[in-house]
Amino acid sequence: VFRPHFKTHQSAAVADWFRQAGVTCATVSSPGMASYFADHRWGDLTLAIGANPLQTGALDALAGRLRLGLTIDDQRTLDALVEDLHHPVAFWIEVDTGQHRGGIAWDDHARLVDLARGVLAGGESATTPAHTLAGLLTHGGQSYQAATPEAAAAVFATVRERLQTARQALLDAGLPPLEISAGDTPAFAASADWSGLDEARPGNFVFYDLMQLTAGACDEDDLACAVACPVIGVYPQRDEVLLHAGSVHLSCESLTIGGRTVHGRLLGLDPTGFTRLVPGWEIAGLSQEHGRLRARSPQARAELPALQPGDLVLVAPVHACLTCEQFSRYWTLDGQELPRYRRR
Amino acid sequence: VFRPHFKTHQSAAVADWFRQAGVTCATVSSPGMASYFADHRWGDLTLAIGANPLQTGALDALAGRLRLGLTIDDQRTLDALVEDLHHPVAFWIEVDTGQHRGGIAWDDHARLVDLARGVLAGGESATTPAHTLAGLLTHGGQSYQAATPEAAAAVFATVRERLQTARQALLDAGLPPLEISAGDTPAFAASADWSGLDEARPGNFVFYDLMQLTAGACDEDDLACAVACPVIGVYPQRDEVLLHAGSVHLSCESLTIGGRTVHGRLLGLDPTGFTRLVPGWEIAGLSQEHGRLRARSPQARAELPALQPGDLVLVAPVHACLTCEQFSRYWTLDGQELPRYRRR
Repeated sequence: VFRPHFKTHQSAAVADWFRQAGVTCATVSSPGMASYFADHRWGDLTLAIGANPLQTGALDALAGRLRLGLTIDDQRTLDALVEDLHHPVAFWIEVDTGQHRGGIAWDDHARLVDLARGVLAGGESATTPAHTLAGLLTHGGQSYQAATPEAAAAVFATVRERLQTARQALLDAGLPPLEISAGDTPAFAASADWSGLDEARPGNFVFYDLMQLTAGACDEDDLACAVACPVIGVYPQRDEVLLHAGSVHLSCESLTIGGRTVHGRLLGLDPTGFTRLVPGWEIAGLSQEHGRLRARSPQARAELPALQPGDLVLVAPVHACLTCEQFSRYWTLDGQELPRYRRR
Repeated sequence: VFRPHFKTHQSAAVADWFRQAGVTCATVSSPGMASYFADHRWGDLTLAIGANPLQTGALDALAGRLRLGLTIDDQRTLDALVEDLHHPVAFWIEVDTGQHRGGIAWDDHARLVDLARGVLAGGESATTPAHTLAGLLTHGGQSYQAATPEAAAAVFATVRERLQTARQALLDAGLPPLEISAGDTPAFAASADWSGLDEARPGNFVFYDLMQLTAGACDEDDLACAVACPVIGVYPQRDEVLLHAGSVHLSCESLTIGGRTVHGRLLGLDPTGFTRLVPGWEIAGLSQEHGRLRARSPQARAELPALQPGDLVLVAPVHACLTCEQFSRYWTLDGQELPRYRRR
């Protein structure tokens, strides 16, 4: 099953492109995002973040509208949910396959078995609806630290093996066969063979970004979003241009390139669309509303004096998910406005 | 004149507290923010970011509603504005007093004189409204790099001296006396004597944050905002608690404390309100929606097993301006909802 994560784009219009390509289910990371996509006819969503017992009301409302997958790694969360959910959900047990963020350690078979039995016991209760145990879910986010596609592919192999091992341990304990689900763009982009998993949930690949490019997960041609930033100051004497584009627009995420902190790079544009990154230009610093665009090459320094206040430049973001989160809509290059969900 | 920057709180309700204290004018950093405060009866606002020639329509609409100050450092911006503004504005010439973000260098007297004359010439044109030249404006943002209050106070003294020198140069060139305006919380917090400036525009002090605390600009008792974060996972075996509170909530801003990257700290609460930071707890890592809260002391590790999914903890942000930007309202500790502006 291909269940792409929609947290990167968070747009019903972009989601329609997935639907047109045959995708019928997706992953989200908050009840609000799930509700938005439910409003746009998505009927099968997994919330791939540990369910929050304070949100059982919102989760139950969602479960009444669609096939809802919930992620848990703690019996107390399960108990709180089972007590308050009136509609059936599919529980995924989160497994820590090496990221050390959420989940039960992949080799802590005792806890995995206990929680799996807990879900099945809750599901069998006469007073609760027929919740199901869908399987084991992980986010192999350690792939974001991989410097090369080979390293990311190695993460993929390790994550898959650990999920398979955990599933086998549950089988050996007498539990039914479970699905295994993983998703993170660097590892999936680096791996041609996704076999051995039941479900794939990458998300960032829809736009890619400088972080993925630097790790070799994509090519420059794959960069699919950029922020149009107005020039508000030009300073040839210090090789800089000032943009009204700060942390509140680009996010404060950064990359280290050649020992320098970089918050974005310029993307070229011609009548065919985005072209390539423009060499020699980097966002060298951000404050709340300002971005300092620095010319680092002789070529860029030669181009700089031609820029003037009121020009627009396109900045490719370091981390597309965080940058897009700052906006409430997209514009396509032919001027179409695409709505997106925005957290209140 | 005390013209606090409202970009930190962006809330009409918080602004009312300023009004009750006698404040009648404010600073903002976007036309949208200005429009929001204009809707809430603020009639004198300065936009303290280089004016964007692409926004002359919005700026003109604002100038028709209130006394609008605009910031410029380029003749081309001035020309674009003067051509399209039908309502009078007050122009501030931005001066670079050492931050090297926006502005004409404080000692580039020739360019300062030229632009000042340009404003006066535009103002005298028979076909344009009577724009005024208000003065010289700077942001001494280099104070954010000051590690101590003494270093921040030294920035204050330097910034003031440079503004005064620039003003004198304009006087010597035959221009009328101009006001000088500066504003940045670290330098103003560190300086008991604000004399010698005509206008003060600090903003962050309304809430303060861990960055200001670390620089000695405030005490723990001054921390006035925090994010209520739900616990979604508890991992005693690796001294961590997982919060549904990621970069999209806290912003990805970080501080280095004892060589460690810290994205937030826990703030205590009792019936009297916020108390002090809780020792031994730090947000050690963020991803888009997750925050990893780490117990670093024996005391914190002892407290950890008592936490459970569904608990709420209060996280004091590293940089209040960026964190608050992620939300559309505040809650006071007695349950009152305070609206805030949110950029679309």
